Amino acid sequence: MTTTSEPPVTTSSAAAATVSAAVSARPGSAPSAPHAPASGTAGPRVDVAELEHLLLGRWKDVRSHARRLVAEHDEIWKIDGISMQEHRERTLEAMKVMARDEQGQVWRAFPERLGGNDDAGGNLVGCEELFVADPSLQIKSGVQWGLFAAAILHLGTEEQQDRLLPGAMDLSVPGAFAMTETGHGSDVASVGTTATYDPATEEFVINTPFRGAWKQYLGNAARHGVAATVFAQLITNGVNHGVHCFYVPIRNPETLEFLPGVGGEDDGHKGGLNGIDNGKLHFTDVRIPRQDLLARYGQVAADGTYTSSIESPGRRFFTMLGALVQGRVTLDGSASVAAKAGLAIATKYADERRQFAAGEGQDEITLLDYAMHRKRLLPRIAETYAISFAHEELLELFHGVFSGATDTPETREDLETTAAALKATSTWFAMDTLQTCRQACGGAGFLSENRFTSMRSDLDVYTTFEGDNHVLLQLAAKRLVGDHGRKLARAAKSPAGMAGIVAGQVKDTLLHKASLRKLGQNVADAGGARAASNLLDGGTQRALLEGRVDGLVHSVAMGMRPAVSTKDAAKAQEIFDENQVELITSATAWAELVRWDAFTRALDAIKDPGTRAIMTTVRDIYGLTVIERNLDWYLANGRLSASRARAVTTTIHHLLKKIRPHAVDLVDAFGYGERHLRAPIADGSERVRQDEARAYYRELAASGRAPKSEKSLRGTATRS
Amino acid sequence: MTTTSEPPVTTSSAAAATVSAAVSARPGSAPSAPHAPASGTAGPRVDVAELEHLLLGRWKDVRSHARRLVAEHDEIWKIDGISMQEHRERTLEAMKVMARDEQGQVWRAFPERLGGNDDAGGNLVGCEELFVADPSLQIKSGVQWGLFAAAILHLGTEEQQDRLLPGAMDLSVPGAFAMTETGHGSDVASVGTTATYDPATEEFVINTPFRGAWKQYLGNAARHGVAATVFAQLITNGVNHGVHCFYVPIRNPETLEFLPGVGGEDDGHKGGLNGIDNGKLHFTDVRIPRQDLLARYGQVAADGTYTSSIESPGRRFFTMLGALVQGRVTLDGSASVAAKAGLAIATKYADERRQFAAGEGQDEITLLDYAMHRKRLLPRIAETYAISFAHEELLELFHGVFSGATDTPETREDLETTAAALKATSTWFAMDTLQTCRQACGGAGFLSENRFTSMRSDLDVYTTFEGDNHVLLQLAAKRLVGDHGRKLARAAKSPAGMAGIVAGQVKDTLLHKASLRKLGQNVADAGGARAASNLLDGGTQRALLEGRVDGLVHSVAMGMRPAVSTKDAAKAQEIFDENQVELITSATAWAELVRWDAFTRALDAIKDPGTRAIMTTVRDIYGLTVIERNLDWYLANGRLSASRARAVTTTIHHLLKKIRPHAVDLVDAFGYGERHLRAPIADGSERVRQDEARAYYRELAASGRAPKSEKSLRGTATRS
Repeated sequence: MTTTSEPPVTTSSAAAATVSAAVSARPGSAPSAPHAPASGTAGPRVDVAELEHLLLGRWKDVRSHARRLVAEHDEIWKIDGISMQEHRERTLEAMKVMARDEQGQVWRAFPERLGGNDDAGGNLVGCEELFVADPSLQIKSGVQWGLFAAAILHLGTEEQQDRLLPGAMDLSVPGAFAMTETGHGSDVASVGTTATYDPATEEFVINTPFRGAWKQYLGNAARHGVAATVFAQLITNGVNHGVHCFYVPIRNPETLEFLPGVGGEDDGHKGGLNGIDNGKLHFTDVRIPRQDLLARYGQVAADGTYTSSIESPGRRFFTMLGALVQGRVTLDGSASVAAKAGLAIATKYADERRQFAAGEGQDEITLLDYAMHRKRLLPRIAETYAISFAHEELLELFHGVFSGATDTPETREDLETTAAALKATSTWFAMDTLQTCRQACGGAGFLSENRFTSMRSDLDVYTTFEGDNHVLLQLAAKRLVGDHGRKLARAAKSPAGMAGIVAGQVKDTLLHKASLRKLGQNVADAGGARAASNLLDGGTQRALLEGRVDGLVHSVAMGMRPAVSTKDAAKAQEIFDENQVELITSATAWAELVRWDAFTRALDAIKDPGTRAIMTTVRDIYGLTVIERNLDWYLANGRLSASRARAVTTTIHHLLKKIRPHAVDLVDAFGYGERHLRAPIADGSERVRQDEARAYYRELAASGRAPKSEKSLRGTATRS
Repeated sequence: MTTTSEPPVTTSSAAAATVSAAVSARPGSAPSAPHAPASGTAGPRVDVAELEHLLLGRWKDVRSHARRLVAEHDEIWKIDGISMQEHRERTLEAMKVMARDEQGQVWRAFPERLGGNDDAGGNLVGCEELFVADPSLQIKSGVQWGLFAAAILHLGTEEQQDRLLPGAMDLSVPGAFAMTETGHGSDVASVGTTATYDPATEEFVINTPFRGAWKQYLGNAARHGVAATVFAQLITNGVNHGVHCFYVPIRNPETLEFLPGVGGEDDGHKGGLNGIDNGKLHFTDVRIPRQDLLARYGQVAADGTYTSSIESPGRRFFTMLGALVQGRVTLDGSASVAAKAGLAIATKYADERRQFAAGEGQDEITLLDYAMHRKRLLPRIAETYAISFAHEELLELFHGVFSGATDTPETREDLETTAAALKATSTWFAMDTLQTCRQACGGAGFLSENRFTSMRSDLDVYTTFEGDNHVLLQLAAKRLVGDHGRKLARAAKSPAGMAGIVAGQVKDTLLHKASLRKLGQNVADAGGARAASNLLDGGTQRALLEGRVDGLVHSVAMGMRPAVSTKDAAKAQEIFDENQVELITSATAWAELVRWDAFTRALDAIKDPGTRAIMTTVRDIYGLTVIERNLDWYLANGRLSASRARAVTTTIHHLLKKIRPHAVDLVDAFGYGERHLRAPIADGSERVRQDEARAYYRELAASGRAPKSEKSLRGTATRS
């Protein structure tokens, strides 16, 4: 169904037509349309339709379908201020709407033989777009189909898929994904729950040995879940084979009462996502048949003999956890959706809203014509494009691996590293962006109807679930540093290699394909990058960004080397501690480079010259903004002189002025219309109000009844 | 009553005794108490009681009373997850508890002749402490007593105070403060509401001439308010005398229905503070008697003649708005309370919570023993101390002005500048801190019971109300730059003066008493500050911080000079635009310097040598953290060499390790016990769970029934 050709949401269907009309027919034809290029100049314009189409990406039909679905179904939208209980039930009903979707929106990832589409990438795309309606719906759907059902899909045998997936897919069996425990979140390998095989009855006995081993924060656990995929230490014949996943019924599907031996607690009210019934679970001698160990990577025979196709317990563990990567990819995409929606609302408002006049009798100035306001919003638009283009490439990498087309240990590792680094940095970025947008709209930004606070409260937890962001960055950084370290070790064996290390010329693999694909002409043309002094030159930007990644990774690799050789765990821990902050920073730097590359490649795909010119400026803003926020590193490491460092800031200032007339076009191209934004401050009514106020004062002046101002009578201008 | 001697809350009364016991009796005597100094060293310890007493400040009795009141009255606490309507009614009831308080907690600022205490400073202290129970209670109280009643107090005549204050004070007349309009928030001078004097009936006629002039975001407007202090353009005899404040009944006190000519709307659900019934108001030919213009600064005679003791309309306007400063002072204090509560919870948890072991068979590492986690939390503890000490000085400055003891135009201006800069930076800091704390506690941090998300959602709007933070910083910066500019203008009249400008040696007043009071010995002793190379030297830190303020202010002053002489408003606006970002940055830098000075002065007041030594390290962490986050400026402006810049980061790292054993003591000294924190993750149960888990594994091992691990059987350590 991925190939079903559907036009993008803004140009099809009645509802979409309304959206389109609303977007183009901006109310109040003020003398100068504020987002038109400066009057008198015949400068380039953004071809919004082309850019929007580009952003839709490879799964444009799936994305458009999901956007239309969201726009049309009011009953799946979040209502702020309803009780937690109401919200939970509403979310479950919304999932049923999803499950009924004629395109099988939520089943795309599942096998065709069970009614799915075998379309791993498209599945994530559809899920990402749910954010804009209700993040609770997105995450509760994610729990059901992306974690609970996906565990059966990825960790189960074909027999288990056939037996257990249908109920999970059609929602007749709502399920929890019971991995995290109160005592262990990031460190999954240390969970305390046990599944001990009893050959006498051919059953596993699930137990929670102490309070810290209660399963915790599980969606569907507090109320709706009737089964769970439970991660526990598999013990058979006196040996612990490490964490495995088990299918465990937890509630009577009729009464929703816990089954014998199962207990739990409601997590209660949360900072957001209150449409999801998160809770705790614990098990006391709960027996499940041997057949319900999800047995793709590890099997227990009737007599208790354990077998696995993966010999190393460590590698087996990480293989089983590998499916979790899809959650991270989805969260990266959701962060992109959140940033787009927030920036579209705040930018449309800032383009219209006026406050303070430059002088007596003059019109007030729009917020976007203040340098500070531009600096707050516009670089975030640029970074959102970068995040979006990189996410599209991540989706392709994911799809390649999960469809089997390019599934190698190396691509899996690339995928995990990239997903970890991108998810961590994009969820943080989106959080900061929503908060910036909320403040940029003042009191209006604080009203739930204008969306920022509502989206932000839900997005909050995206920074710590599917992997705490710091832990994820560390994971990615360890890969970067590890690769580099191996290179160093080889290089150190020869004097020439050693010289190369000193000169900082040792290149390693992942780092220098930071780039998920090869860079296009844009950069290649720039030539001798380091020599170029022009900050607007792509090659210069890339050399600076890459230089920082190199520098950080090399520094950490050198700093951590003694830890490799020491036998003293405390000493090793101390060395790690000395390097941890820089280690984590290096993964952030790498993510920024990955995004710059993706953005630069995307420029090649833009046909309209005006649009490409403007988007190149937007790319420059992104690149220079990243450099600006790390200026201290560039200066301290001699990569930029003091005067060039100052030029970075002034250049950004001028670029922001340059794209200010295109700001609304740039957010329109994100592809969210009024039916998605649904924010009164972004629907044009601000301009209508201003026109009304202006008309009032104009008519008052014409009537001759206008009061004189005391100020003008005194002939003084004392407002300071 | 300010002088009533009351012991701090943690050592008096039954409830407080519980708190104290809970704080000192930490559960589970683990072999090494994690917040004890490194074993083997007889290093200094924090005298928690002394430090707590120091933080209580000049109004220690008021603060202790408020904390006890909050700890004891469960009925005033926020309940997360109740409906907006329930929360609104609960908050009104909580205000009645406040109004009944035997110490007149909320009446402190009012005249003694009406039952108040004439204690401006103490009033704010009491209000600040309400944050920890329910920010809605704090802000709805602030609306009633700090805005509505305070407008009558500060803008009314004695006759008006006597007539209108009693109902406002005892809550029989809940009131709204109707200043902001849909069309004008920050730019109050431009509000559209009119109050036109009609000499025929000796009445003012209040009108809302267009939609943009609706009053907006007003607490008490949607439901409870029966009167409002309305800001409107005063028009009499055909002249507009600018914005004045009017007392306007809006609802029938019995039925709570709007009076004729008054209309409004409910603002509905908000990002936080849902215990407050914010709403909109509009007026159509609403007539009020001439006597209800609050007439302290402007009067209208029966025949319509306008008089004022302040000739300049601009100065009159800013004088009338001057009372708003108390809101900003309170928000600065509230930010300090929020940061303290958040950091206390997150630090206690991080001190106990363990995740990942350094090696096989070793105990897991506490979060605070990770460098990244220390870097996330501990500098924020240092900055919170700085904010708290500076706030105490701000309170004294405020009290001096509002008690009349030191009320001069100059101190008023100092107060406004300082309050603006501190409020803006501290509310941002507290927001980021709560978010950092929330993430530092992972999934547990997202549960409402652990407080972070709940406090954060309410605190959010503190960044834009009582003055948008960017607007406030600009206000403060204009003062700094203006002072400097006048100095420059004078200096430029002589060649020597000009040379001084070039050498950056021109000093101006406010800037160099950045310091609210003179600096103590600590810094004076350091001598030739600029020459000192030791980053731990107070004089060096101050020279660096002051140098940045100087440099930024001078740069902006030079950049903006052409705007002063030009007659072209567009040109002037363009020059302003070029400098706006740096302008705003300069006020931030100044706030950081003010705080460093306040912290340094506070060190002198610490008697216990060990505590003073540790707190000096905490001060150093604050100073170096500020320098570190602006390293790019120091490097680009040649104030630090590359190697010294790197030393800043490594020095901070080592200082954080050094104070890690004192982290819990440092947050205990904030003075909030379990009855204030009320967060399950900070009550010691995490350690109890860990002890239980350890005991389980120990007993299992001793029993001989423990499974062997497959990993150990294979003799491989494949976990990477």
